[in-house]
Amino acid sequence: MKSKSSTIRFLYASSDDSADVLYLGGVFVPDPYLSILTAKKSYAVVNRLEYSRVKAKSNYDEVMLLEEIKPKAAELLGLAKADVGPGELMCYFAQRFAVKKVEVPADFPAIYYAVLHEAGYSLKVKRGPFFPKRQKKTDAEARAVRQGNAASAAGIRAAEAVLRESVIDGKRLVYKGRVLTSERLRTIIDQVCLEKGAVAKNTIVAGGRQACDPHEAGHGPLRPNELIIIDVFPRVQKTGYHGDMTRTFLKGRATPEQRKLVAAVRGAQAAALAAVQAGAKAHAVHAAAENHFAEAGYKTERSGNRFTGFIHSTGHGLGLQVHEPPSVSTKKEKLKADHVITIEPGLYYPKIGGCRIEDVVRVTEGGYERLSRMHYRWEIR
Amino acid sequence: MKSKSSTIRFLYASSDDSADVLYLGGVFVPDPYLSILTAKKSYAVVNRLEYSRVKAKSNYDEVMLLEEIKPKAAELLGLAKADVGPGELMCYFAQRFAVKKVEVPADFPAIYYAVLHEAGYSLKVKRGPFFPKRQKKTDAEARAVRQGNAASAAGIRAAEAVLRESVIDGKRLVYKGRVLTSERLRTIIDQVCLEKGAVAKNTIVAGGRQACDPHEAGHGPLRPNELIIIDVFPRVQKTGYHGDMTRTFLKGRATPEQRKLVAAVRGAQAAALAAVQAGAKAHAVHAAAENHFAEAGYKTERSGNRFTGFIHSTGHGLGLQVHEPPSVSTKKEKLKADHVITIEPGLYYPKIGGCRIEDVVRVTEGGYERLSRMHYRWEIR
Repeated sequence: MKSKSSTIRFLYASSDDSADVLYLGGVFVPDPYLSILTAKKSYAVVNRLEYSRVKAKSNYDEVMLLEEIKPKAAELLGLAKADVGPGELMCYFAQRFAVKKVEVPADFPAIYYAVLHEAGYSLKVKRGPFFPKRQKKTDAEARAVRQGNAASAAGIRAAEAVLRESVIDGKRLVYKGRVLTSERLRTIIDQVCLEKGAVAKNTIVAGGRQACDPHEAGHGPLRPNELIIIDVFPRVQKTGYHGDMTRTFLKGRATPEQRKLVAAVRGAQAAALAAVQAGAKAHAVHAAAENHFAEAGYKTERSGNRFTGFIHSTGHGLGLQVHEPPSVSTKKEKLKADHVITIEPGLYYPKIGGCRIEDVVRVTEGGYERLSRMHYRWEIR
Repeated sequence: MKSKSSTIRFLYASSDDSADVLYLGGVFVPDPYLSILTAKKSYAVVNRLEYSRVKAKSNYDEVMLLEEIKPKAAELLGLAKADVGPGELMCYFAQRFAVKKVEVPADFPAIYYAVLHEAGYSLKVKRGPFFPKRQKKTDAEARAVRQGNAASAAGIRAAEAVLRESVIDGKRLVYKGRVLTSERLRTIIDQVCLEKGAVAKNTIVAGGRQACDPHEAGHGPLRPNELIIIDVFPRVQKTGYHGDMTRTFLKGRATPEQRKLVAAVRGAQAAALAAVQAGAKAHAVHAAAENHFAEAGYKTERSGNRFTGFIHSTGHGLGLQVHEPPSVSTKKEKLKADHVITIEPGLYYPKIGGCRIEDVVRVTEGGYERLSRMHYRWEIR
C-alpha cells in the first residue's frame, strides 16, 4: 500500500474508444472497464466475460474480477452492492491504496469525476496526452503503422485500377457497364482493406466540388476531367494501428489550372517534408507548406459560407488514433525523434477542384523515414 | 438571452464517438465539436472545415463558426486567443446566455468539466441516457436498424454458404483449396456487409473452446464437428444505425450434447421473447431465459479463471450504439413501446462448445416486432 502523498491514476473506457486504454492494456475489451495505475503497478478490473482473456493476454500486472471486488467495495463504503458503480469502485481503490490524489485523462467520463470530487479526492485532469510516450513509436509500432499504410495503398491502387478500366460516357464514368459512383468505389477500396486485415471507416472518395469540402465523404456519380480525392485511413484489426494516405486522381484530361494546382500541392508536400526532423517546430513545417502555396499565388480566404485555399493543418500524429498529437499546424509543438506524423497539404477551389496528397513519416534526427509508399501519377487517360 | 435560473447543456464530442451528438446534429463530424442546448434552441460551434456542410445538412437551429467565436470569447474572458479552448468557449456561452447552471452528459470530457467547475458554474452530470428519447425508435429508426440487420444476415448467409461449400479434411475445414480460418471467414462476412453499405468491426467467428469466451473474436483454423458462433454487428454508413445478429453453425455432425445445447438456447430465446412487451420488466425477460436454462439442467458457475453456462445478459438496446440502454439483464429497467433490443441468450461449456442465438425486436404494446430475419438451421453436413 502506498503512502498518503502518492497519486493514483484511473482510466475508464473500452479499448475501442480509448487508445490510451488499448496502449496500456494491450488487449481488446469492447466494453468500458477500470484501469488503475499506481507508482509501481498496473491493474485492471474486468467482469467475468473478460476475466480469463484479459488475465491471459494483457499487459496488466494484476487483473481483478469485478464480481469479487464489488461486494468488498460495498462493504468498505457502506453501500448496497447495486449502488457500487465505477465511480464508487474508484473510491474503494483510492481508500485501499491510501491515496488522496487522483489523476485522470482529459477524456475521463465526467460522471465518475463528479463522484470522486464529491468524495473529497484531490483531482487532477492531465492536460495533453495521458501517456506522452505513446507519441514516440517503437520499431514495432512503426511497422504496425506501415502495415496500415500498406492497406491504404492497396485500396488506393484498387481505385486507380477501377478508374483506369472505366470508360468515359459523356459526363459520367462507367465501370463494368454501370455508372461509377463514390459509394461504389468506396466499397471496393474498403473491401481491399479488409483483405489486408484492416477496417476502413469514412473513406473519402470525393470528386469535383465535393472534394473542396475536406470532410465530405463523397456521393453520387464520379465525373471525367474532375479531380477526385481518395483518402483511406483504415485500422489494422490485429494491432489497432492506423494507416492514412491520400492520393488525388483525374480520369480524362486535366486543364492547365488543374495541373498547376496538383503541382503546387506536390511542391508543398516536398517543402513540408524537407522541414521535418527531430527538433523542428511543427508550426515551421506547416509554414513551409503555407509559404509554398503563397509563392505559387494560391490564397486562402473565405467566400460566403465556404473557405478556399489551404484550409486545414499540414498533418497530425498517427498511431492507435487517426488523429493524435502532435499537430502539424499553427500550434506550438516540437517534433521529436520517433514521432509518426502525416504530411498532407491540400488546395480547395470549387472552380478548379480539390487536391490533397498525404504520406506518413517517422521523424528521425536528420529528417524522416517514410512509412507509406505509393506513386504520384494522377492523370488517367 | 435566458434568465439566470435556466440551465444550459453542453456536449463536446465527434459524431463518431458520441451517439448523442450524432442523434442531436444528424450530421457526420469526425472531430470533436461543441453542441449547445438551451431551453429553446440548439447550436453548434464548428471550425471552417465543417462550417458549410454542417450549416447545410445538420438539425441545429444555429451553426456558428469557431474562428469567429474565439476572438469574441477571448475578449469577454480577458484571455489570449490561443488560450481559448473548448472549456473556455463553454464559459463564454454560459456568460452570453446568462446562466449559472450547466448540465453535461455522463461521458462528457473531465477536462472541460474541471474548467467549468473552476469557473464557478453549478454543474450537473446527467445520470443515464442524455436523450432518453433516443431509446424509443421512430419508424424511420426501426427501418434503419432493420437495414443493419439485413447486412448482418447477408454476412451470416455468406458464411453459411462458405461452410456448406467447405470440405472436411481430417480436423480441418478446407474452402477453395485452402484451410478455412476464423480470419478468412470474417473477411468474407465483413466484405459482404460493405456491399450492403455497412461497416463491420470486431465480427466474431469463434469455434470450439474459443466460442466459450464470448468476447474472443476467433482466430486460426475452424474445425469440423464444433459449434461456431458468428456474431455480426455492422454499422450502416449512411445512417449510423447498427445491426446485431448471431447464429451458431456446425459443419459436420453434431453430438447429442451439442444438439441439446443448441435446443436449450433456442428454447431460452423463445422464452425470453415470449416475455417481451411494453411494461414488462427487463429483468423478468432475463429471468425467463435463465429459468429455461435451469429447467434444462444447465448451470452457470465458475471453474478456475473461467465461467461457464449463461454468463452474460439476455440483451441490450440497439441503435446508434451497439450497446445502449435499456439493458435486458438483472438491472431494474422497464421495457417501453418502441424500445429496440436484442434477445441473445447463450450457453458456454468448453467441453461441449458455445452457442448464442441473437435477434433484434422492437417492443410493442402487446409483444414485439422482429427487426431481424434469418433461419435457424445450424447443422451443415
